[in-house]
Amino acid sequence: MTFAELPAEPTVAIVLYPGFTSLDAVGPYETLSNLPGARTVFVAARPGPVTNDGGALTLVAGAGFEEVPRPDVVVVPGGPPENVAAAREDVVPWLRAVDPYTTVTASVCTGSLLLADAGLLEGRRATTHWLVLEHLATLGCFPVSERVVTDGKYVTAAGVSAGIDMGLGLAAELAGERVAQRIQLMIEYDPAPPFRAGSPATAPAEIVQELREVGLGL
Amino acid sequence: MTFAELPAEPTVAIVLYPGFTSLDAVGPYETLSNLPGARTVFVAARPGPVTNDGGALTLVAGAGFEEVPRPDVVVVPGGPPENVAAAREDVVPWLRAVDPYTTVTASVCTGSLLLADAGLLEGRRATTHWLVLEHLATLGCFPVSERVVTDGKYVTAAGVSAGIDMGLGLAAELAGERVAQRIQLMIEYDPAPPFRAGSPATAPAEIVQELREVGLGL
Repeated sequence: MTFAELPAEPTVAIVLYPGFTSLDAVGPYETLSNLPGARTVFVAARPGPVTNDGGALTLVAGAGFEEVPRPDVVVVPGGPPENVAAAREDVVPWLRAVDPYTTVTASVCTGSLLLADAGLLEGRRATTHWLVLEHLATLGCFPVSERVVTDGKYVTAAGVSAGIDMGLGLAAELAGERVAQRIQLMIEYDPAPPFRAGSPATAPAEIVQELREVGLGL
Repeated sequence: MTFAELPAEPTVAIVLYPGFTSLDAVGPYETLSNLPGARTVFVAARPGPVTNDGGALTLVAGAGFEEVPRPDVVVVPGGPPENVAAAREDVVPWLRAVDPYTTVTASVCTGSLLLADAGLLEGRRATTHWLVLEHLATLGCFPVSERVVTDGKYVTAAGVSAGIDMGLGLAAELAGERVAQRIQLMIEYDPAPPFRAGSPATAPAEIVQELREVGLGL
């Protein structure tokens, strides 16, 4: 086993903060909320509505951080770096406080910057959105260009949509391959991207260059 | 062009109803909200919070149906069939009322059952979640086992995660391949499913059988 055993009724906590990227949170939600016995909760500085980076999507946090002191699985979504930086003050102390109790602490996209800020990735391999991968090195960890990176109980995924692959992989590690395969078939995850444009290695060079110039934020 | 031309500032309306499946809505959101000039709105019978099938995720509808009389792009997410049936009374009249104005009317998963109920798929090719595909035939359309099916201006996607592929394909048709490739690279959609279990054709036979027995709902 890669991870310690989950309790029979694990709490899966998905973090929200103003300006998060919605698919970063919902991909892992749609997979990990189907872990057997799991109670899933969206958690934020305060319970209530939290609006995403685009401004048109609002998810409701069911609990404030102080109401979820012992989550078993934590997922931190990413967002544009300025939103992540603004979330630091609220999110980092909670990540530190719950760390002794988690079986897995995970992130998607730039969510790993918050894990790193909390000191959880010190000396570890980790990943993030391709546009900020090198920035991870300045935070005391080793950036790895892989879709999902596991180091100890810390699991980091690449940009946005990588949270779905991460969620299924975690489901397999935590509850067995059969459970993960059921979830994958239920969400009919047999992806057929219309273009070979999903990574800087495969996308047309001019598109990669365009995004490098724009930075994170379309 | 497969579709008519979009206006310069298109309205993308994503429908919510109690018990919808969250990834069905958020996959298309994360792609189509990045169409140039687009205003995206989550729309429901009434503005305000709408809770998903799992019960732990609540999205806020920014507008009621009567506030969005002329959307350019409509996306209807799916959900367990009983939730879709319960939504019919609210959603179907609006789908009919806005149909003369849409450039594209789309669905993910069992959302196509609502399009069919509205009479929009009469005599057309369409798809849905693999577990209810044959049911579509009873609603006057021709079920097709493909990930994304386009017939006229009606675009239907297979189960849950297929909404991401559909959103990117639509972005290409509506705004050009370059825009779609930018979105794909920004969400780093270079999928790496951990198993070959995403369709009934590839999943282990016993998992397919298990899900057929359970039906829609894990």
